[in-house]
Amino acid sequence: MSADRIATIRPVEEHDATGAVAAIFADIKRTKNIDFVPALWRTIATNPVQLELVWTTLKALMHPEAAGRTPRLDPTTREIIALAVSATNGCSYCINSHTAALCKLGVDRETLGEIMAIVGLFNMTNTLANGYQIEPDVKPPLD
Amino acid sequence: MSADRIATIRPVEEHDATGAVAAIFADIKRTKNIDFVPALWRTIATNPVQLELVWTTLKALMHPEAAGRTPRLDPTTREIIALAVSATNGCSYCINSHTAALCKLGVDRETLGEIMAIVGLFNMTNTLANGYQIEPDVKPPLD
Amino acid sequence: MSADRIATIRPVEEHDATGAVAAIFADIKRTKNIDFVPALWRTIATNPVQLELVWTTLKALMHPEAAGRTPRLDPTTREIIALAVSATNGCSYCINSHTAALCKLGVDRETLGEIMAIVGLFNMTNTLANGYQIEPDVKPPLD
Amino acid sequence: MSADRIATIRPVEEHDATGAVAAIFADIKRTKNIDFVPALWRTIATNPVQLELVWTTLKALMHPEAAGRTPRLDPTTREIIALAVSATNGCSYCINSHTAALCKLGVDRETLGEIMAIVGLFNMTNTLANGYQIEPDVKPPLD
Amino acid sequence: MSADRIATIRPVEEHDATGAVAAIFADIKRTKNIDFVPALWRTIATNPVQLELVWTTLKALMHPEAAGRTPRLDPTTREIIALAVSATNGCSYCINSHTAALCKLGVDRETLGEIMAIVGLFNMTNTLANGYQIEPDVKPPLD
Amino acid sequence: MSADRIATIRPVEEHDATGAVAAIFADIKRTKNIDFVPALWRTIATNPVQLELVWTTLKALMHPEAAGRTPRLDPTTREIIALAVSATNGCSYCINSHTAALCKLGVDRETLGEIMAIVGLFNMTNTLANGYQIEPDVKPPLD
Repeated sequence: MSADRIATIRPVEEHDATGAVAAIFADIKRTKNIDFVPALWRTIATNPVQLELVWTTLKALMHPEAAGRTPRLDPTTREIIALAVSATNGCSYCINSHTAALCKLGVDRETLGEIMAIVGLFNMTNTLANGYQIEPDVKPPLD
Repeated sequence: MSADRIATIRPVEEHDATGAVAAIFADIKRTKNIDFVPALWRTIATNPVQLELVWTTLKALMHPEAAGRTPRLDPTTREIIALAVSATNGCSYCINSHTAALCKLGVDRETLGEIMAIVGLFNMTNTLANGYQIEPDVKPPLD
Repeated sequence: MSADRIATIRPVEEHDATGAVAAIFADIKRTKNIDFVPALWRTIATNPVQLELVWTTLKALMHPEAAGRTPRLDPTTREIIALAVSATNGCSYCINSHTAALCKLGVDRETLGEIMAIVGLFNMTNTLANGYQIEPDVKPPLD
Repeated sequence: MSADRIATIRPVEEHDATGAVAAIFADIKRTKNIDFVPALWRTIATNPVQLELVWTTLKALMHPEAAGRTPRLDPTTREIIALAVSATNGCSYCINSHTAALCKLGVDRETLGEIMAIVGLFNMTNTLANGYQIEPDVKPPLD
Repeated sequence: MSADRIATIRPVEEHDATGAVAAIFADIKRTKNIDFVPALWRTIATNPVQLELVWTTLKALMHPEAAGRTPRLDPTTREIIALAVSATNGCSYCINSHTAALCKLGVDRETLGEIMAIVGLFNMTNTLANGYQIEPDVKPPLD
Repeated sequence: MSADRIATIRPVEEHDATGAVAAIFADIKRTKNIDFVPALWRTIATNPVQLELVWTTLKALMHPEAAGRTPRLDPTTREIIALAVSATNGCSYCINSHTAALCKLGVDRETLGEIMAIVGLFNMTNTLANGYQIEPDVKPPLD
């Protein structure tokens, strides 16, 4: 009467990776300063083009210095955005991964609670604004 | 061959508000330091209990000092979360409102672009992690 | 600097409908007791199979007596479900249509406010339960 | 090759709760007439402000008599809304909890099936109305 | 500290099905050329009307020849749509089922990777287009 | 009593683009064989890094030959995925754009209707599978 989340495809094992895939796996471990390649990357590695596109994008945005870029947001704010999106979408893998990342960055559970409370609040007010089809008050002035 | 977003219910006009509703309208203007009551609040004011519950929650989380609370996150980070959630949910009213708030807080369009790029990235990786049913690597250690 | 929602496909005009499509259009007007065919039905009529499948399903569930079926839920509860789903999904067309239907059934704006408040609340708690990956307390006993 | 849902944060144990948290835990058990505090509440209790805000809102809307308020909707309709939202969002914890609540209120599996069929139907028609960008027929007349 | 997905309702066992339900169960096995009735169908069979409506719709669209209809899309394209929707919604049951169906149709893991990459890409660009409230360039010309 | 979708940020005009942005604008027009740069690209160009990352990804996946890659899916299937995702997410800009693209590729309105009907169907069955927390039948065999 119970069932687990079942991965639909076998991830590429690190020792099976060759060529461009092996090089990206090495870059992931070096850039993130971890000693294993997370399952997300080993899974999308089954299509090497996909691996390269997603890693290039994530490296540029989440590890900007390693990509030779000066970011506008600090690492904690970037991870908070990641968690806010993942919680809104209910993505188990990403929620686990970004909560762990925030913890590693020193965010304690009360701050995590404040993040979640705000994420929850705006999921509520989004529903109200949509549910009543409320019309905008403002024309944002950004040029 | 075209049609507008149509509010489903007529908002309460400020000059029609009395009692608890008028008091909350005044508190909204004072707390947010604005000279009108936004349509969201005037709409949910059609049910005064709802107005009070949503305002109490939003005031405590987004205007913590006014609610007598010391926050853990700064105002810009809080508005970034609001925009990340609203963009993920595609809520027009909230996207307009929180983009304007970030602009008022001094966020420029390149920073807004970095926020959006990160929000977009994690909507992509959330889909991949869900779409392959990828299993978690980590047990987050938060106690 | 402004833009409207733009229908992607021209709906079938009532006077252009023939055969099975015309028969379903007539059934829609008779069953719903209205004197025009709403745009949803005229649009999906561009694929007559789709029109038949969706109308058969909606008629059976939302107009059960007309479909020769005894429902378990009353009409107002059924429309409340429709609005709760549509507000959660942010579907403009459906929010307008089901709010109007509830109004026709005698629901006033304070009750609408209670519905919306509950819809908003559970969009908030869903986010919290997902965002913390909270594990279930209960095994529902329904056999 | 299998993995469980993993809570990201350790809930507060009932015997560890003190002060305002202990008082809310007691109010939850009394109001809901249950002999344990569900994991949702024990988890958000890691941030006591969040616990208070969410419980105040949920108590007012879902246990209105306990909050000194006269509701417009009956308890079964309120739980049906909760399930409709939770099913639409795919929130496991909430689906389990609100299905159990409906069962306790005497809803049998055929009625549950009618609820689900209607929730499913409007997730389908929402997609069609959005997918064709169908323009509204009506201006809802609610004042 | 771990928990499984828990079905909220006991599915109808094949040997317990009678009448219209048994006939649909037989039609499902014959049409899909499988020797068991999947859990989705056995679960919604707890409300026979729901079973009939959903099966009629799915048979017409996904097994059109069995329903006496000439489809416009081939079986692989139809399953790709099913997977794209299910991945976007994060529906575990459906992701598993439609990935298996694509595999049975001969889709290899690199093609699956291309499908997923495209699904992920448009979840990203959808968020960007919504997040900036970008206004349409085109009036689609479909008549 | 009506309001338009309001872009939150002024797109970069083609004649204002310089350097890397101008080069990408030219590549977009050449690759897509169009004589203007769509608003999506001109908007995200306000952050040139974002423009480059999203265009590189979209070019590789949707214009693979221009990116020097042999695709596994044909252009129509790729656009069908784009529309299925966009309809599920309710993204107006993307729905308009991908419906127009499919039309240009020769898809007629009856085929569009079949696509939409299948997209709608699986949004319904996803909700049912999630709403009952149905447990998977299969372990997909993809290696």
